[in-house]
Amino acid sequence: MAYLNVVRVDEALEELYHRFKDFEAKSERVPLHQALHRCVSENLYATENLPSFRRSMIDGYAIIASDSYGASEQSPMILNVIGQVEMGKSPVQKVTSGVCIYVHTGGEVPDGADAMIMIEHTELMGDDVALYTTVTFGENIVGIGDDVSKGALIIKKGTRLKPQHAGILASLGYGEINVTKKIKVAVLSTGDELVDISASPIYGQVRDCNTMIIRQILEASGAEVVLESRVGDHLDDLMNAITEAMSAADIVLLSGGSSAGTKDLTQTAIDSFPNHASTQNVFIHGLAIKPGKPTIIGQVDDKAIIGLPGHPAACFTVMKALVEPFIHQISGTADKKIARIPCEAQFQLHAAGGRDVYQLVDVHFEDGKFKADILYGKSGMVSALSEANAYIVIPMNHEGVKKGDQLLAYHL
Amino acid sequence: MAYLNVVRVDEALEELYHRFKDFEAKSERVPLHQALHRCVSENLYATENLPSFRRSMIDGYAIIASDSYGASEQSPMILNVIGQVEMGKSPVQKVTSGVCIYVHTGGEVPDGADAMIMIEHTELMGDDVALYTTVTFGENIVGIGDDVSKGALIIKKGTRLKPQHAGILASLGYGEINVTKKIKVAVLSTGDELVDISASPIYGQVRDCNTMIIRQILEASGAEVVLESRVGDHLDDLMNAITEAMSAADIVLLSGGSSAGTKDLTQTAIDSFPNHASTQNVFIHGLAIKPGKPTIIGQVDDKAIIGLPGHPAACFTVMKALVEPFIHQISGTADKKIARIPCEAQFQLHAAGGRDVYQLVDVHFEDGKFKADILYGKSGMVSALSEANAYIVIPMNHEGVKKGDQLLAYHL
Repeated sequence: MAYLNVVRVDEALEELYHRFKDFEAKSERVPLHQALHRCVSENLYATENLPSFRRSMIDGYAIIASDSYGASEQSPMILNVIGQVEMGKSPVQKVTSGVCIYVHTGGEVPDGADAMIMIEHTELMGDDVALYTTVTFGENIVGIGDDVSKGALIIKKGTRLKPQHAGILASLGYGEINVTKKIKVAVLSTGDELVDISASPIYGQVRDCNTMIIRQILEASGAEVVLESRVGDHLDDLMNAITEAMSAADIVLLSGGSSAGTKDLTQTAIDSFPNHASTQNVFIHGLAIKPGKPTIIGQVDDKAIIGLPGHPAACFTVMKALVEPFIHQISGTADKKIARIPCEAQFQLHAAGGRDVYQLVDVHFEDGKFKADILYGKSGMVSALSEANAYIVIPMNHEGVKKGDQLLAYHL
Repeated sequence: MAYLNVVRVDEALEELYHRFKDFEAKSERVPLHQALHRCVSENLYATENLPSFRRSMIDGYAIIASDSYGASEQSPMILNVIGQVEMGKSPVQKVTSGVCIYVHTGGEVPDGADAMIMIEHTELMGDDVALYTTVTFGENIVGIGDDVSKGALIIKKGTRLKPQHAGILASLGYGEINVTKKIKVAVLSTGDELVDISASPIYGQVRDCNTMIIRQILEASGAEVVLESRVGDHLDDLMNAITEAMSAADIVLLSGGSSAGTKDLTQTAIDSFPNHASTQNVFIHGLAIKPGKPTIIGQVDDKAIIGLPGHPAACFTVMKALVEPFIHQISGTADKKIARIPCEAQFQLHAAGGRDVYQLVDVHFEDGKFKADILYGKSGMVSALSEANAYIVIPMNHEGVKKGDQLLAYHL
């Protein structure tokens, strides 16, 4: 397999976006309470004002502010209490000068009133109330539309819903919303040395851990694994499996063994499908990242077929660096996520000429700052992966990392 | 309702932990592929060595390292190729001095060999191969147990499983694992002004947004909402609802209206249940946080009953500051989470004497660093909540925040 033309990850993503720009993620309508972590597929606007009535922020009396002017502990102003507003009901009386109406927190401020005075600053005496302080126009009242104005954009298309979004959607009556359907992904694992997780490997065999890593990353990125199967190292079997996968999924991931033979087979299989363009189906034969170089990217009909590297850490890296952003892009996810954490390198690491280096790290808080420890481990190892909670990227042609350098690590 | 004894959040949590320390979260067995975000309920150990055989890191020849000593482009060493190791099978031949065996990446290194030489540094000539470089003892071989030693602790009890953990568990054959059962929570909303999300409120009514906020936070923290209902502002109804909730859930949350009347009713209801201790059921009558002061915490039998504040932002704050950590504690979650992000304040904010201040912020990356903008909004507002992606805490008696201060914001 030729590694003559390794491609930068950003270039590979550009090419993928370009080729699949017409992919339109379908949307579906779900109840709001099932929308956590789902991606909103349309701009959501305020269909009404919030609050929809003048709302009291306190327990107290609705008054005309000027009726309180000059009131103090020494010289209270006296108003006549003509009633109270029941919770959940509209006021039936109006406030005029000289009178007031009791309103609970959250209740509607009656017409005529232009301020609320806290009950703590008053004293009830029979049908009258003494005001011991001055309140200003509008005090303790939330006006109509003060929180959200009718027509305002409240949630942008592409937002992945978090708990904090639920409140505004519920307040505006969004009992159901349109979200992007999950992108469907098929995962085919190849390699004669691989056996099931539940199997007891004999010498030379290993359990298929990559499929599980891939599945968990896909699910965490909001995609759905619609098909998962193991295929032997034979061209016909592989092509049949890819054909079946393409009929079920939007994206087909091939999780290969680590040997050159398996990689060759993957490329041959993808390129053996009929081609409607002038180029070969496989359009990227290697990525300029470490680990993760032996990655193959192709297109058959309108499906993306990606051959992932066999080493677990390399497979993980390519999933995070390439597949996850690709899924987010075609599903229209536009997250306002705080994905990175500033931290201080506790290690030294050389750059690799011509390749972006992805390094797993453990970020922890110590002495008032975040520090990143390197997690050593050859790329075939799964232990470093399990201990990591973040990774850093050293761009190609960068000088590397020195102990004490300030880094931006990506959360895992 | 008396606010004489507001309690610090850390004290409230201590008291909750103390009272419910005997709560034992049950565990259940789930397939590994369903364990994402679930909490492992036992220490998991390596049941075998990884790799379980000497594994080649490259495509090349298994040799005795000393056979390559002195080899160079100018003066290659010649070895006889006696065979190759098939993927997924144990080698059938041994390497002795003067001979070598071809092995794929990931394949098993045959007995006798103590190094692998990359195919790129060799040239095949009939049955012989020329070595053009010297390799050292152990080069390009991952030894038995080099990745994970049999018996090693690989995942600590309490870990919430992330994609990166899947690899090691799959590699070790953990097809199923024991995870903590989800903590069951009932959410009762009270307040005559509240109507369903799908309803069209008339004047004075508001849609019940808090229940939805609470539900989403609970689900994101790994709990399960087993019951959700709306109760009118009547003592008997509320007590009946609490009784039903206690039979279904581990924790009962009361999401009240904002008025003092609703709060009084909540406290009265909790205290009206029979009490087996010398104190009242309600043991905390207010929290020293802003927003969030009107929080009530009680215990009836072996259930925690928490009355949340009615203002959406206050409700949200108490969920994040109190309920979420409580759920994590009793469910045994011990996350190694990077929950905070260092950022620079773009605002000024005064501390509140005697109360921890929780302030919603928008953290964004700009000019090479993270900056936090304040999201203004009275505590009844849901728009600030929706725009926030983090919050900061100003501890009571702290001097407040000045523009340019370095902060640690908590992710939302």
